[in-house]
Amino acid sequence: MLLEAIYHQPKSQYAYAYNEETLHIRVRTKRHDMDRVSVVWGDKYDFSPEKVTTTRMVVFAQDDLFDYYHVAIKPPFRRFAYAFKFETEDQTVFLNEVGFTKDKLSSSGVGMLWSPSGMFEFPYLNPIDVHSTPDWVKDAVFYQIFPERFANGDPSISPKEVEAWTPDAVPTATNFFGGDLQGVIDNLDYLVDLGITCIYFTPFFEAHSNHKYDTIDYLKVDPQFGDNNTAKKLVKEAHRKGIKIMLDAVFNHSGYYFPPFQDVLLNGEKSRFKEWFHIKSFPVSTNPLNYDTFGFVPEMPKLDTEHPEVKAYLLEVARYWVEDIGVDGWRLDVANEIDHQFWREFRHTVKKANPEAYILGETWHNSMAWLVGDQFDAVMNYPVTNSILDFFVKDEIDAASFMGRLDAMQIAYPKQANEVAFNLLDSHDTPRLLTIAEGNKARMKLAVLFQLTYSGAPCIYYGDEIGMAGGADPGCRKPMIWEKEHQDLDILAFYKKMIQLRKDHRSLKDGTFRFLSAEKDKKIIAYERTDVMDRFIIILNSDNQKQKVTLENISAGTFRNIDTDE
Amino acid sequence: MLLEAIYHQPKSQYAYAYNEETLHIRVRTKRHDMDRVSVVWGDKYDFSPEKVTTTRMVVFAQDDLFDYYHVAIKPPFRRFAYAFKFETEDQTVFLNEVGFTKDKLSSSGVGMLWSPSGMFEFPYLNPIDVHSTPDWVKDAVFYQIFPERFANGDPSISPKEVEAWTPDAVPTATNFFGGDLQGVIDNLDYLVDLGITCIYFTPFFEAHSNHKYDTIDYLKVDPQFGDNNTAKKLVKEAHRKGIKIMLDAVFNHSGYYFPPFQDVLLNGEKSRFKEWFHIKSFPVSTNPLNYDTFGFVPEMPKLDTEHPEVKAYLLEVARYWVEDIGVDGWRLDVANEIDHQFWREFRHTVKKANPEAYILGETWHNSMAWLVGDQFDAVMNYPVTNSILDFFVKDEIDAASFMGRLDAMQIAYPKQANEVAFNLLDSHDTPRLLTIAEGNKARMKLAVLFQLTYSGAPCIYYGDEIGMAGGADPGCRKPMIWEKEHQDLDILAFYKKMIQLRKDHRSLKDGTFRFLSAEKDKKIIAYERTDVMDRFIIILNSDNQKQKVTLENISAGTFRNIDTDE
Repeated sequence: MLLEAIYHQPKSQYAYAYNEETLHIRVRTKRHDMDRVSVVWGDKYDFSPEKVTTTRMVVFAQDDLFDYYHVAIKPPFRRFAYAFKFETEDQTVFLNEVGFTKDKLSSSGVGMLWSPSGMFEFPYLNPIDVHSTPDWVKDAVFYQIFPERFANGDPSISPKEVEAWTPDAVPTATNFFGGDLQGVIDNLDYLVDLGITCIYFTPFFEAHSNHKYDTIDYLKVDPQFGDNNTAKKLVKEAHRKGIKIMLDAVFNHSGYYFPPFQDVLLNGEKSRFKEWFHIKSFPVSTNPLNYDTFGFVPEMPKLDTEHPEVKAYLLEVARYWVEDIGVDGWRLDVANEIDHQFWREFRHTVKKANPEAYILGETWHNSMAWLVGDQFDAVMNYPVTNSILDFFVKDEIDAASFMGRLDAMQIAYPKQANEVAFNLLDSHDTPRLLTIAEGNKARMKLAVLFQLTYSGAPCIYYGDEIGMAGGADPGCRKPMIWEKEHQDLDILAFYKKMIQLRKDHRSLKDGTFRFLSAEKDKKIIAYERTDVMDRFIIILNSDNQKQKVTLENISAGTFRNIDTDE
Repeated sequence: MLLEAIYHQPKSQYAYAYNEETLHIRVRTKRHDMDRVSVVWGDKYDFSPEKVTTTRMVVFAQDDLFDYYHVAIKPPFRRFAYAFKFETEDQTVFLNEVGFTKDKLSSSGVGMLWSPSGMFEFPYLNPIDVHSTPDWVKDAVFYQIFPERFANGDPSISPKEVEAWTPDAVPTATNFFGGDLQGVIDNLDYLVDLGITCIYFTPFFEAHSNHKYDTIDYLKVDPQFGDNNTAKKLVKEAHRKGIKIMLDAVFNHSGYYFPPFQDVLLNGEKSRFKEWFHIKSFPVSTNPLNYDTFGFVPEMPKLDTEHPEVKAYLLEVARYWVEDIGVDGWRLDVANEIDHQFWREFRHTVKKANPEAYILGETWHNSMAWLVGDQFDAVMNYPVTNSILDFFVKDEIDAASFMGRLDAMQIAYPKQANEVAFNLLDSHDTPRLLTIAEGNKARMKLAVLFQLTYSGAPCIYYGDEIGMAGGADPGCRKPMIWEKEHQDLDILAFYKKMIQLRKDHRSLKDGTFRFLSAEKDKKIIAYERTDVMDRFIIILNSDNQKQKVTLENISAGTFRNIDTDE
């Protein structure tokens, strides 16, 4: 028994409230080290021998080095003292807050070290602290729209220099094609038909660029896209058709032409906005750069989100679009560079306006510090994105490594955050999926199939579903192809079928996920998704040849090729 | 190299901002496993090979199984990408966010896995998120007063049934001796002479019991102790003499006679206060208990701190005593059973009234979830209490185990929380130190000497310094003995000397702490405390016989017996 491998931390992703009555307790051990792992638990104020319960835990995730055990427990008085019991054939070891002990529990079940003062504790399950995430996201299929490139519904407001919207149009860093919000309204039925239930828009607030990340006015739709009434109409029409709307909150930095920054450039130390940014000296200079920016980009001055006026302004933005316009969520750009205190107030503001609003952080790294219930609902699941691409699309890792990387994310966060994680395969910031797959449709389909049968909310980047290709920005930002003869209808049919399958089966949304096979040096995986209604066993072969897989404890049955129905 | 033993978690006690420019990075390895451990780091947006720095880490804590490495780094742009490098004689392994790799770094210093997207990150050091604790607490020597038992300064307000204040008085659960706030004011010079800089009062708000934990009115001094003007006078006089005041916030539950609870008892479902508590059914009943309480004590109904009115009331209490009366801190009773959200607002309220106020949680268990900067400054350090008692006083553990348990607390929390941790050896809830030591003054002195030369703020329970004895509550709550002939003046002199030593040397307050010797099966320890001015080497023998200790890399010198000056 390798004691050094065992890890538990109270009040963390290893011990948290899943809902108002349920605690999740987890512990890590060396892989394949234990025969049995249990939680020994009781009320912290009544830890008498006859009231202590021993509950067996199950392995819910595995990686190269570790097994991760999990159990759900409902303590009658919402408080809880506990220890772990590890068993192998010839050894029993207990772990409590003081450390390890090999002492056998006495026949009464409670020995010296088992006094509550030595136990781990979940001191009290207070409802307000539960990391509660919106239920609707579990059922959602997202569709990401880059508004300048989806559809032009109102040519009268298009930029003057607009280029022709053709299937072979070439996007550049600076050109315009005339997409707008009316274009989205006009095509809502297309999205309904595809099975979409929420649109994630990259920014549509006033800005100079075609991508609109250089915000000028956070409270105004860019005139090239329409006005705030168009936005309101879009939300209303979308809601009527069962589609929700999520916007992009670029609060880490403003654009260069944001009036307060322009005022600082103009008036320097005398500007009443000089404290809205992190200016190190005056006059403000872009070279050498003497103010904090996103990365080292002078055009994106970092906002001081600790400043009361900046905070008040941005929180009003957050409130306005949710409460007055009716949008259903915010995706938070560069979310992990803004202070935690701001996000706490942001959550309070947004959830007050709509308790069911979805708060999604763009973070590329471990995000546990934002997922404790007071800040984000979930994060963009880039580690899962990369794992899916590396295994199915780029063919760079084996099945064991794929499982290890995915399961590491299961233990990284509380379950309720993973249930509403945002699973994307590509975006306006990356090459398109089909391009990453070097045109290999079979590989693309495997990735999509996995995405649509994995836990968390899938997001489709506009046009992927009709086989659009394109390299890194700007290549991935071509205008949407609407002519059927230029669409890949086979891919479209595949997406529709997979989305429908997911919609028809709860188990594919929030059922238990478990790998059944993921061997070293193999390219084939099998996994199951189960709930009380269904049990799906899905086998995906990412090898170029036919492969055999042996599943233990699975009774014989017939498998169907989901693509060909054979 | 045991990979399973290595542990790091971004944005946790393993990676946090120590101040507005400094990050602390820590990692755990198997004990004595590594020759060298380093952090490889650079700016997250400029991670070019020539700009990556490798900084060696040092072991700052050890326990039975693990070494804990630490390093402080100041990233120029307040953001930071990093990985770890582990070296033994024949192996080099790197750990980044994706996992372990044995790939040698290329000569350029940066290989494939070293792209920032695979690195750990501290995304941004925002000042408001720094867990900032009050500097004065590092210099503080606390003195805990149980107000009914310290001194009777105004017999006119003593309870009618008051008993005689004699050295052989016997406290019971219900009797009274007449201690009050004027008694404390009258004896401030005694505390100044002892070297005290802050008084921690158990509750003095209106309540029926002698301990006053059954609050009736949180905004009013108990009439047996004086009135709010007496409190104000006490604070003013104490401040004039360089002594701060910390009060006890019993916010988890009210007393049975708290008017809102009485209203619920009387009016049941019609009470306008029925939602101030957690009542499960009406009418309210104590047997069977149908409302939530502290433990299973019907007389202590748990307050619903999520309810806006309760929150507003308690936050006003928090503000009033700090802002209007001038107290310097709050000790939070049963702190970990109240919701985190309440404590966030509590911190905001208290620090707004006095940014230097000390917020101290009473928690007996791992408290990391409250020490991330938005809730408590520090917690009562019971794990250290128990370790000191077990080693020096009860003679139950060996030196290695003592070191392991103390060092485990060093890695459990950020340094700034440990610097202002509240180190007590006994209290109104435990037997007195001398009684735990079964009258063995030498053992008591060792414990006190360690307490006063360890990191964190020491607290002396009233009367310990004059050799008062007493078992568990109520035995530990005897009236203070003021007659010199009944005081142990040897113990008093020892306390004064040790307090003065601590006051004279910064290094004993916030200097680096490091064990020099703590062997298995031995009862002798050596440790050093160092800063730029001083280097103390302290050797404490907890054995009943003389012992020899060998210190490596220490040049010869003369050691002095701190008690006898020999």
